[in-house]
Amino acid sequence: MKLKINREQMLKSLTVVLHGIASKTPIPVMSNVKMELNEKGLLLVTTNNELSVRTTIPYMIGSTDIITNYREGAALVEARTLTEIVRRMEAKEINIELVDNVILQIDDGRSNFKLNSVKVEEFPLLDFEPTGVTLSLRVSDFIKMVDQTAFAASQKEQRPVLTAVNLLARDSELTAVATDSARLSRKTVKIDQNLNFSANVPAKFLSEIARMAETEDEIELSVSDKKILFAFDNTVVNSRLISGEYPATQNIVPRSYNYFLEVNADELLRAMDRVSLLSGERENVVKLAMSASEVTISTKSNQKGSAVEQLSTFQFTGEPLQISFNSAFVAAAVKACRSEDVTLSFLGEMKPISVRNMEDETQIQIVTPVRTY
Amino acid sequence: MKLKINREQMLKSLTVVLHGIASKTPIPVMSNVKMELNEKGLLLVTTNNELSVRTTIPYMIGSTDIITNYREGAALVEARTLTEIVRRMEAKEINIELVDNVILQIDDGRSNFKLNSVKVEEFPLLDFEPTGVTLSLRVSDFIKMVDQTAFAASQKEQRPVLTAVNLLARDSELTAVATDSARLSRKTVKIDQNLNFSANVPAKFLSEIARMAETEDEIELSVSDKKILFAFDNTVVNSRLISGEYPATQNIVPRSYNYFLEVNADELLRAMDRVSLLSGERENVVKLAMSASEVTISTKSNQKGSAVEQLSTFQFTGEPLQISFNSAFVAAAVKACRSEDVTLSFLGEMKPISVRNMEDETQIQIVTPVRTY
Repeated sequence: MKLKINREQMLKSLTVVLHGIASKTPIPVMSNVKMELNEKGLLLVTTNNELSVRTTIPYMIGSTDIITNYREGAALVEARTLTEIVRRMEAKEINIELVDNVILQIDDGRSNFKLNSVKVEEFPLLDFEPTGVTLSLRVSDFIKMVDQTAFAASQKEQRPVLTAVNLLARDSELTAVATDSARLSRKTVKIDQNLNFSANVPAKFLSEIARMAETEDEIELSVSDKKILFAFDNTVVNSRLISGEYPATQNIVPRSYNYFLEVNADELLRAMDRVSLLSGERENVVKLAMSASEVTISTKSNQKGSAVEQLSTFQFTGEPLQISFNSAFVAAAVKACRSEDVTLSFLGEMKPISVRNMEDETQIQIVTPVRTY
Repeated sequence: MKLKINREQMLKSLTVVLHGIASKTPIPVMSNVKMELNEKGLLLVTTNNELSVRTTIPYMIGSTDIITNYREGAALVEARTLTEIVRRMEAKEINIELVDNVILQIDDGRSNFKLNSVKVEEFPLLDFEPTGVTLSLRVSDFIKMVDQTAFAASQKEQRPVLTAVNLLARDSELTAVATDSARLSRKTVKIDQNLNFSANVPAKFLSEIARMAETEDEIELSVSDKKILFAFDNTVVNSRLISGEYPATQNIVPRSYNYFLEVNADELLRAMDRVSLLSGERENVVKLAMSASEVTISTKSNQKGSAVEQLSTFQFTGEPLQISFNSAFVAAAVKACRSEDVTLSFLGEMKPISVRNMEDETQIQIVTPVRTY
C-alpha cells in the first residue's frame, strides 16, 4: 500500500472512525484502524465488537485530487497514534507507505514516522452489508430524535434492554423511546414508508452516531434482527442491537391531567439549579408547590440548610398541589423540549409528571415524582 | 450580623478566598469561610492550615456603596456552597443575615437560602500580621518570577524542600529557584532594598497566589522564619514555609558551554510535540542530533515505532553532538523563556543543558540529559 493523501481529509475521516475505538479495549487489535486502499479509495475501519465504523476517503472530491501516487494494499496501525500524528503534521499532503509489510511510514518531508503495523489478517471480519428494512431520515430529524430521548436511557447494566433506545416503526411513523424506569422520553417522526419493526439500539452508540452524522443531510437506517446499520456520506456504522422485548410504555404516559403549570423554561431551570445546591442527602430532590397565586421550588437538607425560590412568570390551572421530584431529571426533560415555555402537567402528588412543549406534539417527557416525608 | 451587599463584589471576594480551601479537608471546619463584619468592612477568611487567605470587602469603593443596611457580627458557613449560591443568584444586591446565631440567611427577593452556620469560635486563630522583612514587587514581575520557576519544583513529597520555590534576597536582588533535581529554573528581579533572607515557599501555593493577584499592580511580601505573607489589594495570604536548607544550586548552572543551538521556539515545540508521540516505553525521551548542516529530533520505541523530525530554521555552533532528554522538560523550559527564539547551550552529551532567551539575562532554565542505550 502506498499513497499521497490530503491531510485534512485524512484527519476528518480518522476522527470519524475513532468513534469505533473503545477507550479501553482488552483485545489489542481493536485499538487499531484498518486502512485499505482499493478501487473505491482509502477505507478506514474500526470496531469495538459492538460498534463498527467504516469510512471511505475517495480518490477525488469534485474535481480536487484527494489521493494520488498510489498502490493498493492494506495495513493495521494503532488508531489514536495515527490520528495524533496526522493532526499535528503541518503539510497539506502526506505520503503513506507500507514498508516490508510491518512498518507504516508517514512522511511530509519535514516529519517522518514509522509505525509498527500488524498483519491485516488479525483484524476481525466485519459486516457492513445492509439487510432487512431500510429507511431514510433527514439528519436534523435523526439528531432531534436521539438528543430528545437517549439521555433518559438507563446507565446501569442490570436490565440491559433499558440501556437502549427503542426504535419502533408503525403506520408511517418512527418512534424512539428511552426509559430508566424513573423517567421516560418519547419522540416520533413521520416516515415515507409504512414499515414495521422494533429495534433496541444502545443509547450511547446512538448518541455517538448523531455526533458523527452532524454535518450531513441524510442518514439511512437498515434494520435487521441482530444489527442496525447507519449510512451517511461515505460512512457506514454497524451497531449491535440489544436483545429482549422492550417494556410496554404506552400506559405510562397519562391520557389526561388535572393540573397544568406553564412556565418560562429558562427561569425554571435557573431556579432549580440554585435550589438543588442545598438538596444534600437526597441528591437533587426539590419540592414544587403550586397555586394560582404562587409557585415555589424548595428543598431542605439537615446538613446544609434550606432554600426557597419564587417563580415570577407562570400560569397554573388546578387546585393547589405539592409534588417532589429529582430536579436533574426535570431539568433534562425541560431542556429536551427546546422551547421558550414548557408545560408541566400533573395528575396528582404521586403520579407521573409530563413535561411538554405544547407547540410540538411529536415528543413527550415523563418524570416520576419521589416520595418525601 | 446583617448586611446588604453588592453581589458581584461578594462573588469576586469569595472566589479569591476559595483558594484557601483544600479540595478535600479532613477537618470539617476548614471547609468553611469565616465572615466577619467589622468597622473595616466584610472580612472573608479561609484556611487549610498551610495557606490562609483573608480578603476585605470595604463599605464603599470610590463613591459607590458596596455594603449598606448592616449590623456587625460574624458567621461560619460552607465556603463552596455559599460561593455557588452567590454566583447563581441574579439580583444586583443580596441581603445576608445571621438568624439565631445558627442560620445564615441569604435573600435577594426571589431566592431565599438558609445555610447552617457553625459557631465562629470553632474557626482556628490565624495570623495575618506582617513580621520580619518586607518588600514590594510589581505584580507583573512577581507573576513572571513564579511562572518561570514554579513548574520546575518537585511534585513528590520525598524531599519536601524540593516542592518549594526558594526565594533568596541578596545585594538588591530577589532570586527564585526551583528544581526537582532533573531540571532547574532560576529567575532574578531587582529590588529597591538591600535585603538578606532565604525562604522556601510551597510552589503550588506560589502559583495560586500569582493567579489571585493577577489583576493588581503591586504585591507586598513579608518574610519571617516560619511564614511568608503576601498582601495585595484588600487581600492578605499567609503561606507556611518549608523548613530545611535549600540545596546549593549555583554550581549546577554551567559557566561556559561548547555547543550552541539557536532555534525558533515554536518550531522546536511543535517538532518535539509530534516526535514524543512515539516515545513509548520511556516517556517523552527524544534525541537531538545537531551538526552545522542538520538538526534532527528523533525517538524510537519497540512497541510503537520511530519518528524523525528535521528543523528548518536553526544556527548551530560546535562539533556535531547528540543528546537525549525528556522533551516535556525542555518544552516547559522553552515556554518559560517567553521569546520567539531560544538558545540551547551544551557542554557535552551527559552535561546539563541550558535553555535561554539570550535577550533576557534574568532567567535561566537547566535540564539534565538522560542516558539512552
